Amino acid sequence: MAEMTDYEGYVGVDIGGQSIRVGTIRNGELEVRGFETPASYPEARERIIALAREMAGGSPRGLGIGSPGPLDWRAGKLLWTPNIPWKEISYAELGEPLGCPVYVDNDANVAGLAEAVLGAGRGAEIVSGFTLGTGIGFFTIMHGHIYHGRFDVEGGHQMLNPEGPVCGCGARGCLEAYASATAIEARTGKRPDQIDDPAFWDEIAGYLAQGVINVNNLIGPDVIILAGGMTQRGDLLMEPLRRKANEWCKILPMAPILIAELGHQAGIYGGIVLARLGHGA
Amino acid sequence: MAEMTDYEGYVGVDIGGQSIRVGTIRNGELEVRGFETPASYPEARERIIALAREMAGGSPRGLGIGSPGPLDWRAGKLLWTPNIPWKEISYAELGEPLGCPVYVDNDANVAGLAEAVLGAGRGAEIVSGFTLGTGIGFFTIMHGHIYHGRFDVEGGHQMLNPEGPVCGCGARGCLEAYASATAIEARTGKRPDQIDDPAFWDEIAGYLAQGVINVNNLIGPDVIILAGGMTQRGDLLMEPLRRKANEWCKILPMAPILIAELGHQAGIYGGIVLARLGHGA
Repeated sequence: MAEMTDYEGYVGVDIGGQSIRVGTIRNGELEVRGFETPASYPEARERIIALAREMAGGSPRGLGIGSPGPLDWRAGKLLWTPNIPWKEISYAELGEPLGCPVYVDNDANVAGLAEAVLGAGRGAEIVSGFTLGTGIGFFTIMHGHIYHGRFDVEGGHQMLNPEGPVCGCGARGCLEAYASATAIEARTGKRPDQIDDPAFWDEIAGYLAQGVINVNNLIGPDVIILAGGMTQRGDLLMEPLRRKANEWCKILPMAPILIAELGHQAGIYGGIVLARLGHGA
Repeated sequence: MAEMTDYEGYVGVDIGGQSIRVGTIRNGELEVRGFETPASYPEARERIIALAREMAGGSPRGLGIGSPGPLDWRAGKLLWTPNIPWKEISYAELGEPLGCPVYVDNDANVAGLAEAVLGAGRGAEIVSGFTLGTGIGFFTIMHGHIYHGRFDVEGGHQMLNPEGPVCGCGARGCLEAYASATAIEARTGKRPDQIDDPAFWDEIAGYLAQGVINVNNLIGPDVIILAGGMTQRGDLLMEPLRRKANEWCKILPMAPILIAELGHQAGIYGGIVLARLGHGA
């Protein structure tokens, strides 16, 4: 197993709608610096290059970028994205001025990579997980590499019920249409952190149990990680979720369901891991 | 892409409750010989060794076995199985008398491997599929190797509805509890080949559509293959299934849904492919 010092010299970049954060490991500790996301990509590019060189003390050993999408991750390109006015950006091109390999992936996958390698999933070979936020992100990490399938996986849009509520994606009965913060607010008029009724959380836990059982039986990960603000409800959500998943799943043992450990630093850690391990075969 | 002649010298063994079949490729063509499954494993063992040596013209280059389970595929062991009175059998031990590597996997995975590499999925990198029989088997083949996850995957036991009918596995609302031949007979009193009502098949297609959409969105295979007797109903099943899957799946393009091509020879072909390619990393 790698030590934190093995990650020194690699740089992670977390692109967000509000801020861009650049991180590296120094003396085994994470060091992060950031700036407000500029509307102009050329401006962002200059600041990323300067910070990466400065923090790595010269040319980084590798650069890993987590970005909102849609992306062409193989080509290292951002196509466009809802909350930043950038279009057709080549992140891969940063490799030339920086003199290092550049790897790019979507932010949910990169945060999942961090949890799998350094966080709640460390030591496991196959790690799947959901990010419970305004939408429901999904990731699967196999042997330290992000798994994509043909395009990219979208486990938050597994279909729980073909006659269920309409999802943001246009389909009916997706997990996201039942258990995302958006779905919960639309149905109750309240944010998840404002709802304390155990019966309500018992129902949400049921949808999520069906979701994690399907991950367990179709993918067979060693652990399943839940991330995102909703996990801060703790046992109100996790107790009925674990109970239902373990009671309802019969054909195979149910993988442990864990809460993510790296919080808002997962994206930066994930960029550093991606910089070091790359995309794999 | 490999030619059929690249498989010469490898031997596949298909263990069934009724018969054991041993196959090899000679002059680019499949040659198969078989015998009735003996109640005694030592008897079966001698005949498998003799046939494998005879058909390979000496020591095979590798032996691949598809067997009913439960198995410990990593150890090459059969634990027990419902329809043959064998217990705690080491298939792996055949490697010594035969002087070649031995690989073992469950029959659904081995047949899936054949379809992925030589059948309906040839040329695709990631191939998932269901075997629609008395139960619903499931397989995923990645880059020519059977994918297992932590134990083995059981996509026929994805949960379509936590309040659905009770499945043979004890869980509620598994795909198998809606769309296997057993489930159909229990509900209608008829075998699937005796039912011609399009409205009935439209309903079954709906359950299968939910199943293939979940495979598509969680695993992202390049193609999804359906095998087993029920696929002989042709367009009665496949037309509404393809229509619903494509209509209902929104977030990602739906992978093509193909019918298996190798029929009852899939197990033998799969054994030969497994003998040549092994289990991978």
